Amino acid sequence: MTTLIPVPLPHQSYCIAIRAGSRLALPQLLAEHTPLRPNAPALIVSNPQIWRHYGCAIQAVLEEHGWQVTPCVLPAGERYKTLKTLQKIYDAALAQRLERGSTLFALGGGVIGDMTGFAAATWLRGIAVVQIPTSLLAMVDAAIGGKTGVNHPQGKNLIGAFHQPRLVVVDPEVLATLPPREFRAGMAEVIKYGVIWDPQLFELLQSLPRLDRISALSVDQLASILQHSCQAKVDVVSKDEREAGLRAILNYGHTIGHALESMGQYRVFNHGEAVAVGMVAAGELAIALGYWSETEAAAQRQLIHKANLPTTIPSQFDVHGLVALLQHDKKVHSQKVRFILPTAIGHAEIVEQVPSELILATLKTLQR
Amino acid sequence: MTTLIPVPLPHQSYCIAIRAGSRLALPQLLAEHTPLRPNAPALIVSNPQIWRHYGCAIQAVLEEHGWQVTPCVLPAGERYKTLKTLQKIYDAALAQRLERGSTLFALGGGVIGDMTGFAAATWLRGIAVVQIPTSLLAMVDAAIGGKTGVNHPQGKNLIGAFHQPRLVVVDPEVLATLPPREFRAGMAEVIKYGVIWDPQLFELLQSLPRLDRISALSVDQLASILQHSCQAKVDVVSKDEREAGLRAILNYGHTIGHALESMGQYRVFNHGEAVAVGMVAAGELAIALGYWSETEAAAQRQLIHKANLPTTIPSQFDVHGLVALLQHDKKVHSQKVRFILPTAIGHAEIVEQVPSELILATLKTLQR
Repeated sequence: MTTLIPVPLPHQSYCIAIRAGSRLALPQLLAEHTPLRPNAPALIVSNPQIWRHYGCAIQAVLEEHGWQVTPCVLPAGERYKTLKTLQKIYDAALAQRLERGSTLFALGGGVIGDMTGFAAATWLRGIAVVQIPTSLLAMVDAAIGGKTGVNHPQGKNLIGAFHQPRLVVVDPEVLATLPPREFRAGMAEVIKYGVIWDPQLFELLQSLPRLDRISALSVDQLASILQHSCQAKVDVVSKDEREAGLRAILNYGHTIGHALESMGQYRVFNHGEAVAVGMVAAGELAIALGYWSETEAAAQRQLIHKANLPTTIPSQFDVHGLVALLQHDKKVHSQKVRFILPTAIGHAEIVEQVPSELILATLKTLQR
Repeated sequence: MTTLIPVPLPHQSYCIAIRAGSRLALPQLLAEHTPLRPNAPALIVSNPQIWRHYGCAIQAVLEEHGWQVTPCVLPAGERYKTLKTLQKIYDAALAQRLERGSTLFALGGGVIGDMTGFAAATWLRGIAVVQIPTSLLAMVDAAIGGKTGVNHPQGKNLIGAFHQPRLVVVDPEVLATLPPREFRAGMAEVIKYGVIWDPQLFELLQSLPRLDRISALSVDQLASILQHSCQAKVDVVSKDEREAGLRAILNYGHTIGHALESMGQYRVFNHGEAVAVGMVAAGELAIALGYWSETEAAAQRQLIHKANLPTTIPSQFDVHGLVALLQHDKKVHSQKVRFILPTAIGHAEIVEQVPSELILATLKTLQR
């Protein structure tokens, strides 16, 4: 019934539980798969919309099982992923007298997950966090791997810590209320896993008629997509917890993606849309540098189309400015840009020092 | 010449280098004892006074050896150990384009060390930090063990992370400019190590005529005090990196100490002074509960006197309020207070649930 994906890590392992309705089985999942027990106060951190849909029912089942849990509802949106909003979690932690044995439950998308994870990483120098992702993006990416953090006014995720969750509860049912644009954004990361890691997932996506809305997928198809995607992320992060090497391939599409998000001030593109364009761009670079075949790049582009995700850069974007932004990316090593480029479906490589002129030329060809 | 104390830890070991003038040998120490190399921009975080005395010379020797290092000078004092001041380190990190291979140098007392360590723990999810403590307290305590953090408006060190330094450089010469009151405060922690861990250190302190100012100590005596104290801290933290058990004994004197600091709004007592009174109080509790002998408690009190540190609670302090404050201490487990009590010189134990009435009665006897 429940698909359990173990995440083996040297210091502290945990698992991802995937099942329709799993959010309401949270107390049992905690009892069976974590050392966490309801003997210290806990917080559920969420945003107003998610809380309205799912919060009270989750709080109720936790309380039925003896958990003393208080909601901490934060404003929704990436622009609130700041030290200032984080302070509200700290204030709630203090008000509820959280202890070292306390737990933070993150009920929401990537913003809630990242902030709650960082609050858990830094309150009393580290308490437990359980991730209950409610967006496709968070389910297949943000909630897994232990990256937590907030944004600096001048850059995303510059302030953060690695802090592994004790449990990730993936409940496909909650995707029913996800806005379609956010569903598509999550699909960008799903496609990414197909390209860089899992040829089976890529084939599955090719076999489906539509990828742009949840209602076009059967329950089984959605479950299969979630399992493959979570497993791909786990495969990579469990081999490289602290991003020493392999984990970098997860940044496929993200180098240019981050620059696009930033230049559009996070309003033109959401994260997944920016990554979609970033994957198209990286694909073109890979072809130009002789790493990848045009056929496979075309297949990638087709999936992105099928998910109704963008594949071009708006004409008003300054492509020289985009290249300059790449220099600010935190993944820069000694001021040199590096890219993750696909070499075959299911495989990608880290390529250092892609020439700026080539990046510029590629971005220009994508502009409409 | 240089005393090296290795700090063996499961994930990343480092060492403490103790030597007169070691601050100016920093580039050599980095080259010999760390993997850090001058190929990424670095920051030296300090406060105005310390920077004036020592900053430029250290920056100069680093630059001579190829380090590109920029000062980040923050206001001095515990009241600036906040998220807001931390933001200034982040801003400098962004302005200097720090990379994952960059280093933060913390040149200052405990406040600078804790904030810089926390900034290093959280910038780009963790970069290297080198501690160059300039107060006796920071040398023997704060700089060692990886505890980093800032204060919440309503509680000390509630926001933080464990982040081990790559090197700790202890230079006794810089104690020459330490205000006498701060020297005495550091001596409180030195006495603590004698009581809870190192009988030899306790005897050394007993043999010295004065402990209240640096000029009363020979270079050798000071070196011996630093070595014994650092080794005591290392012994404990290397056995228990994350404060699961043993490390708690380092909180000897701190349970009541924190409450005293807090009630005096960090103005009546500094940290060491509060710990001194806290040790006297814990000693009295230990006698009352039959853990400790009156003779040894008297010997402890004598050392505290000799360091010209307080042993009593001012009459204007509300002792009932102090007991209430203990309930807010983050070391509370499920609302129960615990104490670290000495059982013999060089040994202490964790005692759960000391009765509130006994604490109250003991605090009353210490009031003048």
